[in-house]
Amino acid sequence: MPTQRLTSPSTGRVVKAILFDTFGTVVDWRSGVARDIAAFAAARRITVDPAAVATQWRDLYQPAMEEVRSGRRPFTTLDVLHLENLQRVLTANGFNVNDITAADLHELNLVWHRLDPWPDSIAGLADLRTRYLIGPLSNANLVLLADMAKRAGLPWDVIIGADVTRAYKPQPEAYTRAADILNLRPGEVMLAAAHNSDLAAARDAGLATAFIPRPTEYGPGQTLDLVARQAWDVVASDLVDLAVICKSP
Amino acid sequence: MPTQRLTSPSTGRVVKAILFDTFGTVVDWRSGVARDIAAFAAARRITVDPAAVATQWRDLYQPAMEEVRSGRRPFTTLDVLHLENLQRVLTANGFNVNDITAADLHELNLVWHRLDPWPDSIAGLADLRTRYLIGPLSNANLVLLADMAKRAGLPWDVIIGADVTRAYKPQPEAYTRAADILNLRPGEVMLAAAHNSDLAAARDAGLATAFIPRPTEYGPGQTLDLVARQAWDVVASDLVDLAVICKSP
Repeated sequence: MPTQRLTSPSTGRVVKAILFDTFGTVVDWRSGVARDIAAFAAARRITVDPAAVATQWRDLYQPAMEEVRSGRRPFTTLDVLHLENLQRVLTANGFNVNDITAADLHELNLVWHRLDPWPDSIAGLADLRTRYLIGPLSNANLVLLADMAKRAGLPWDVIIGADVTRAYKPQPEAYTRAADILNLRPGEVMLAAAHNSDLAAARDAGLATAFIPRPTEYGPGQTLDLVARQAWDVVASDLVDLAVICKSP
Repeated sequence: MPTQRLTSPSTGRVVKAILFDTFGTVVDWRSGVARDIAAFAAARRITVDPAAVATQWRDLYQPAMEEVRSGRRPFTTLDVLHLENLQRVLTANGFNVNDITAADLHELNLVWHRLDPWPDSIAGLADLRTRYLIGPLSNANLVLLADMAKRAGLPWDVIIGADVTRAYKPQPEAYTRAADILNLRPGEVMLAAAHNSDLAAARDAGLATAFIPRPTEYGPGQTLDLVARQAWDVVASDLVDLAVICKSP
């Protein structure tokens, strides 16, 4: 492994692994989900705004995980939470879910396994991989991330799903257990994310941090996370830029 | 994902993922460990038979895991077990471990992360990967397998370490939890291994099975596991041959 690696100003440690928030940071969930929602609705002759349905589905993501984080519900994978939320969103958009086969619902639910990377993601990750151990640090479960990587060609060295850490970001254990599994100190791991709140939790847990804006993650009217809100260790314009910066000694 | 996949005669299911025993089946642990033992001993002017030391180290592997399997010891990663065993083996071979720095011991212990694949492994895995989800199913912990894959270029889709399943083969949970994590039924997962006992436990847990002989895993005098001892779903000469067989409908 080459030694030309970044030292984190905030942790004072040489960064050995870079882990990536995935939905929004590495892949464009909104366009991918809208694409499959559009086909699903068209096949059933139901008129919807596919991007709006995608956003509604995503809006149920945090409340569903909060049930788990709070301890009100035992650990449940994102695939299961997504399926429950899908049924609610379809119902709210004029579908009769009782008329849809379980196989069809399951297939649509797997759209989260079939998301496309942003244009810079694969090149940036491939470059970073030559100097760092890289992987996702996502609230998705392992098989979702593995299917996504296989389809999209994301060159991960390692995939640690939330079903492995048994914790959902921003719980501190989601970050610290990932470092533990890698036999690294938290400060030797850098989280790269398009979300300031994720980075704030990672920093609180002792990790190094890198911000990459994804200004169209939520569509053209996005107002959140357009800029870095703290002095993160690295602020890059995209993952290719991150790879350039992370070559610096 | 292409659909030209094997149906397991024993489970009656289409195999969707192939998981591989790693030490011995995918990588040549004995030569790799002997290589680094030889350098370690030479630097300290101690005369040893490096291959014999490698085998002695490996011989402590099953008893150490048995402490965990039996419940006498909480789950402990293979990296930790290897380090404990290394100190015993070095002592038995004339080293004074109190004179060796912890950093040097740790570095030698990481030889299990630096093993080379058999000559057919990468080509066979790359071919199998076009039709199946592939990964290791090893008693090694995740970071060991990730480091090994990164160094050797093993093209895994997913790595499930024993620290993820919290079970050591041949415990049934080691096999069934891996299938669970992949959202597959046990019969949709095939274990490929060079060890009949591993395959027997996998079969008992409901998995499909493939045998590949590795007749020099234990050196030139090997007598165990030269041939398949049961009617496994597939018997192949090596991983390239396995890929050819697994293309058949």
